[in-house]
Amino acid sequence: MELRELGRRAKEAKYEAALLSTEVKNSLLHKIADALLADADKIIAQNAIDMENGRKNNMHPGLLDRLLLTQPRMEAIAEGLRQVASLPDPVGTVLETFERPNGMKIEKVSVPMGVIGIIYESRPNVTPDAFGLCFKSGNAVILKGGSDCLYSNKAITDSIRRTLLENGYNPDMIQLIEATDRSVTAEFMKMKEYVDVLIPRGGAGLIRAVVENATIPVIETGTGNCHIYVDKDADMQKALNIIYNAKTQRIGVCNACESLVVHEDIKREFLPLLAAKLAEKDVEIRADESAREVLTDVTLATEEDFGTEYLDYIISVKTVSGVEEAVAHINRYNTGHSECIITENAEAAEKFKKQVDAACVYVNVSTRFTDGFEFGFGAEIGISTQKLHARGPMGLRELNSYKYTIVGDGQIRA
Amino acid sequence: MELRELGRRAKEAKYEAALLSTEVKNSLLHKIADALLADADKIIAQNAIDMENGRKNNMHPGLLDRLLLTQPRMEAIAEGLRQVASLPDPVGTVLETFERPNGMKIEKVSVPMGVIGIIYESRPNVTPDAFGLCFKSGNAVILKGGSDCLYSNKAITDSIRRTLLENGYNPDMIQLIEATDRSVTAEFMKMKEYVDVLIPRGGAGLIRAVVENATIPVIETGTGNCHIYVDKDADMQKALNIIYNAKTQRIGVCNACESLVVHEDIKREFLPLLAAKLAEKDVEIRADESAREVLTDVTLATEEDFGTEYLDYIISVKTVSGVEEAVAHINRYNTGHSECIITENAEAAEKFKKQVDAACVYVNVSTRFTDGFEFGFGAEIGISTQKLHARGPMGLRELNSYKYTIVGDGQIRA
Repeated sequence: MELRELGRRAKEAKYEAALLSTEVKNSLLHKIADALLADADKIIAQNAIDMENGRKNNMHPGLLDRLLLTQPRMEAIAEGLRQVASLPDPVGTVLETFERPNGMKIEKVSVPMGVIGIIYESRPNVTPDAFGLCFKSGNAVILKGGSDCLYSNKAITDSIRRTLLENGYNPDMIQLIEATDRSVTAEFMKMKEYVDVLIPRGGAGLIRAVVENATIPVIETGTGNCHIYVDKDADMQKALNIIYNAKTQRIGVCNACESLVVHEDIKREFLPLLAAKLAEKDVEIRADESAREVLTDVTLATEEDFGTEYLDYIISVKTVSGVEEAVAHINRYNTGHSECIITENAEAAEKFKKQVDAACVYVNVSTRFTDGFEFGFGAEIGISTQKLHARGPMGLRELNSYKYTIVGDGQIRA
Repeated sequence: MELRELGRRAKEAKYEAALLSTEVKNSLLHKIADALLADADKIIAQNAIDMENGRKNNMHPGLLDRLLLTQPRMEAIAEGLRQVASLPDPVGTVLETFERPNGMKIEKVSVPMGVIGIIYESRPNVTPDAFGLCFKSGNAVILKGGSDCLYSNKAITDSIRRTLLENGYNPDMIQLIEATDRSVTAEFMKMKEYVDVLIPRGGAGLIRAVVENATIPVIETGTGNCHIYVDKDADMQKALNIIYNAKTQRIGVCNACESLVVHEDIKREFLPLLAAKLAEKDVEIRADESAREVLTDVTLATEEDFGTEYLDYIISVKTVSGVEEAVAHINRYNTGHSECIITENAEAAEKFKKQVDAACVYVNVSTRFTDGFEFGFGAEIGISTQKLHARGPMGLRELNSYKYTIVGDGQIRA
């Protein structure tokens, strides 16, 4: 289908989506979950084509694993949709009410964004997941998944559309862009007339391409060059546990720790303990000159190291003279994601919390908690690293905007 | 100064701005107001150069008037800054607190955006006004005003910077881009490393250029193709008063009414009354065929008319069969600004409020009230017509983002 026609249909569907009652949405989410399980064999068969193509194209084993759909994964997808059904509906929440001296009554009410565009890479589970969140929050969604994943995405989208249609609802509340031509994606990012918000989900390259080319407002997500600062008043055992967790529990995620900042007063005691702990997982340390006075056999960290999100068993180490220098270093190199201080000193903690410019600032807690589920939102569409609209984990509520309604009896402006 | 150096300085200044206490900010705003008045003669003399150049370049008289600075206008500018000082400080407001089962305590706290870029046209009063709002909300600001206004803007900015410096604060909390080269503005819009948010203020062309070229997140403001729908159950006197007010009280503003939608059942009674009322201000009516059965001597409205923000004594008229068609027409042509229904029918009002997709939806109130002051925000940086972050009038609170702070005692993720 021609892209603009698809946009036009989504715009029509968004008005329907916005008016659905919570009960209808929840019931449809359960029916869609049932249908995806009933269609699991067909979907897995289509996924096999993507897998076969992936193998032919020498896709990286890690990516192939992300691409794979299995019966247990289909069950997890269905369960995810049922969980979204159980979450509170953000639409129509009255956020504020006030009355003006002239008698007009103003309400600020939560409303859907409208049409949300999601651009993502080769993970077919994003397709039902993003639909579920957008749908529950009253939005229509246009999905542009990776071409490596097209057969899987088509099969999933077809199943969801059929369930909507069979139940008497507009199937265009979910649409998939099937064209794999880059020019189509480029055009999609500029369809301001039809799309209200774009959310890219994927690697840094994808996100940069969307930010640079879109004219539709974008919520930038996911790049995390996360630091942990070990203060001179740190509890070293806490520091070791948290660093070990944040660096090694899962290396490929945006809330993993990529860089340590260590107070120079404790480097002689702390760094050998750190090296021993990280050696358990063969983590490579790249350190500045001052840290290398203690860790004599590690590589020198370059400027580039401090700016790199490794997503690997590598960590950089910078020594500083105190919390001020730690904050300055972090504010220079971080990506606005998650930053942590380990300290038992309340004043240092306060200063760090206040001055570090990031979505999530932690005191004595692993950065790995930056996550919609861990925050108790019950869902997550992504983690915003920009400051407009939403910052940090985004759940259903963050997929809504608001409107003002103003009711009076003939007020005019003098 | 080189643009990137200016960006680097702003980024440094934003950390200082974010930490200023409310008392310090308010005291500085009063001192800056005093200094602008003390410098009024100098500023007016520099403004005279801009005025002289404007006349030489045959600037439109309306624009020349907007460019002009006088002693009373300088007093209004100073008074504006004092009013901003009297408003509540949004920074540091605890928006939410919650605790997770693992014991970590999460706070959602209001924080400044950081560096705000304002791109605007030839109105020198925007310079102190935008600075005041950004400064009170804890932000550093980079201003790019129209080249027609450069001497005035330099004089105002110099005065503010000197007051900051003389009081021991970083003058880079306000910086002006003096280069008039378009390529500099284009580069500015892509300085994501240094600028957190861009807010364009001006005509539709300026705003489009920013939206199309910026990679920094933009808050789109100000285009208003605002409709008033006169329902079959309208109080006609209210309708006439509101339309007269919304169309003619000030024609060049974004919350002025540009288009009427009229229920066909009342067209024979209502349209002649409307024509008589609008004739008082010589408003030209352009109407669809059905309305022209009643208003036989008016021009036929084209598709283009329905999509035009006239900013002039012109109004388009579309007849519809009911509130559904009215909503569909408005959702097709509006710019997400302000839309109004005139009706005494609660059901029609409810439907309209719920289904019209715009920042401000009015029932029996003039669209001219879409304004930060009229809403009681005490200030306004602009009116957002997009759905990300802020929608409708934006005051101090909307110039803040938020961060999460998470405090624990060693929590790690399982």
